[in-house]
Amino acid sequence: MRTAEETVRALWRSFDEGRFEAVRDLLSEDFVADWPQTRERIRGADNFIALNANYPGRWRCRVERIVVTGDEAISLVEISDPSHRLYAVSFFTFAGGRIESAREFFGDCGAPPFERGQWTERY
Amino acid sequence: MRTAEETVRALWRSFDEGRFEAVRDLLSEDFVADWPQTRERIRGADNFIALNANYPGRWRCRVERIVVTGDEAISLVEISDPSHRLYAVSFFTFAGGRIESAREFFGDCGAPPFERGQWTERY
Repeated sequence: MRTAEETVRALWRSFDEGRFEAVRDLLSEDFVADWPQTRERIRGADNFIALNANYPGRWRCRVERIVVTGDEAISLVEISDPSHRLYAVSFFTFAGGRIESAREFFGDCGAPPFERGQWTERY
Repeated sequence: MRTAEETVRALWRSFDEGRFEAVRDLLSEDFVADWPQTRERIRGADNFIALNANYPGRWRCRVERIVVTGDEAISLVEISDPSHRLYAVSFFTFAGGRIESAREFFGDCGAPPFERGQWTERY
C-alpha cells in the first residue's frame, strides 16, 4: 500500500503528465473535493477526472512540499502553463490507502496589488 | 513560553483586531516573510507590521485550521472585508518560541473562471 506521501506525489505526477485517468486508483469510492474559493464541490472520481481533464490549458505541476501529519497530508504545488503561474495548497484525508477528500486552495501569481515597495524586496 | 499553535493564534487574533504592533513580540529578531505569488520578501518585524497596518481595507481574520507538525505550523485563515473574501495559507517556522519565518499564499474568492457546472455542485 502506498504511503500518504506517495499517493499525493502520484496524483500530482499524473496531473503533470496529463494522465488524468490514472488518478482513479488513488481516490476512494466516496471521494469528494471542495474548492472553498468558488464554493464548489466535486463528488466522485468521474467528476474530478473530467473536470481536470477539461480544464483549459496544459498545466505542469511541480510539487514544492508535502507535509504529512496524522491521517492527513498537505501539498504545496506550483502549477503553470506558458502564460500563467499559480500555487495550489491541498489538504488531503485518506481511507484505506486512498484519498478520501481534498480541500484545495489556489493562489494566482502576479504583480503586487498596490505600491508597497518601501516594506518589501522583490526576488 | 507559548506553543506554536498559541503563537499563530495570537498573530491572527492581533491582525483580526487591528492591533498590528502586538505581533512584534511573536516574531524573532531575524523574522522574514515570503509571498511567493508576488515574489516579495518582507524582512523584519518593522516592515511586516507596517505593511499589514497599511494594507488598504479593514480585514477580519477567522482561523479555520492550525496544523502543527515537527517544528512547523500551517494555518488556514479566511480573511474578509465587506467586499472581499480570500483564504491565506501560511507555513510558519519557529526559533526560541517566536515565529522565524512565514511563507504565505493567498487565494481570492469569486465565481468559477469557466462553465464547469456539469462536474461540480455549488455550496
